[in-house]
Amino acid sequence: MNKIIVIGREFGSGGRELGKRLAEMMGIAYYDKEIIEKISDKSGMAEEYVNNIIEKNIVNYYPITVCCSFSMLYEFNPNTTIFLAQQDIIRELAEYGDCVIIGRCADYILREYKPFNIFVYADEASRINRCRERAPQDEHLTDAQLKKQIALINKNRRKYYEYYTGQKWGAKENYHLCVNTSNREIQELVPAIMGFIK
Amino acid sequence: MNKIIVIGREFGSGGRELGKRLAEMMGIAYYDKEIIEKISDKSGMAEEYVNNIIEKNIVNYYPITVCCSFSMLYEFNPNTTIFLAQQDIIRELAEYGDCVIIGRCADYILREYKPFNIFVYADEASRINRCRERAPQDEHLTDAQLKKQIALINKNRRKYYEYYTGQKWGAKENYHLCVNTSNREIQELVPAIMGFIK
Repeated sequence: MNKIIVIGREFGSGGRELGKRLAEMMGIAYYDKEIIEKISDKSGMAEEYVNNIIEKNIVNYYPITVCCSFSMLYEFNPNTTIFLAQQDIIRELAEYGDCVIIGRCADYILREYKPFNIFVYADEASRINRCRERAPQDEHLTDAQLKKQIALINKNRRKYYEYYTGQKWGAKENYHLCVNTSNREIQELVPAIMGFIK
Repeated sequence: MNKIIVIGREFGSGGRELGKRLAEMMGIAYYDKEIIEKISDKSGMAEEYVNNIIEKNIVNYYPITVCCSFSMLYEFNPNTTIFLAQQDIIRELAEYGDCVIIGRCADYILREYKPFNIFVYADEASRINRCRERAPQDEHLTDAQLKKQIALINKNRRKYYEYYTGQKWGAKENYHLCVNTSNREIQELVPAIMGFIK
């Protein structure tokens, strides 16, 4: 069975950087936005639309007056369509070879593959600092605006994960390792994390 | 400032073994039951009594009809006396030199010393297995009995920690690293944990 590492992460915690560096150090594939591209190819939906559904919107239920049966609801719901496409793609990637996958409920989708699950988190000040460091030069958000934006993205991630997995997002019981990146350089943490992976 | 590592742990997760091995590998002091001995010396209470108060009993409030003022409650409560003695001893140990301290709210007591806080946990099956491996030969508990015993000890740890710190026991936000030891050999994990400690 391939070696699969799945990284759940709070927005602003450096989880993506951590995953990328870990994959580089281990010499294995890294999948993050590539999954969005593949969903777009498979479903014919634009990448931005797919990303918006996954990261910003959650579950657009159709009102009961529009959809009269479960099968219709299922068929018409773009969230479910995207989730199912995502599920197929994530399984294909896991079959293909060793890899690091960022978020997207991959810990749950791949549970039969026994992935090594990591959750990356940080305190609010560190999350704000990280977001500011990587923000485009023309973005001038106040700390309060940034704080609100981070909280909203994390709220959406939580809702998305909990809706599709029935598990609590970020609950340590669902992970092999939970890493607090507050005031830490991601680069420093990667060799130690590698040491945990069986 | 001395290097202090504090380990919170679920009963049966191997947290004590982890702490001991970590201290050995780092070549620093290890404090666990030594704290109980010191509290006993300082307070004149028997070691077993002190241990029972900390691990089994929690907070014996005196009924309001017996204690009429907060100062009396404070004075008469052996739990508070023990907690205060424990607090002094833990601070003395932290002043004395680099060390690993197991449990006893040391993460909270030493917060000004900026310790590296680790929480060690495991799934129920692994906790039962670990307890069975280290049980005395003449102990013949069923899985159900062991499960009940483990749950009770963890409940008491949670209540003790939450009463004295006002923080949630085992909430990942209070720790730098949370390590799931399910189906893992503690020995294998220690070098990786060392890699995290600044």
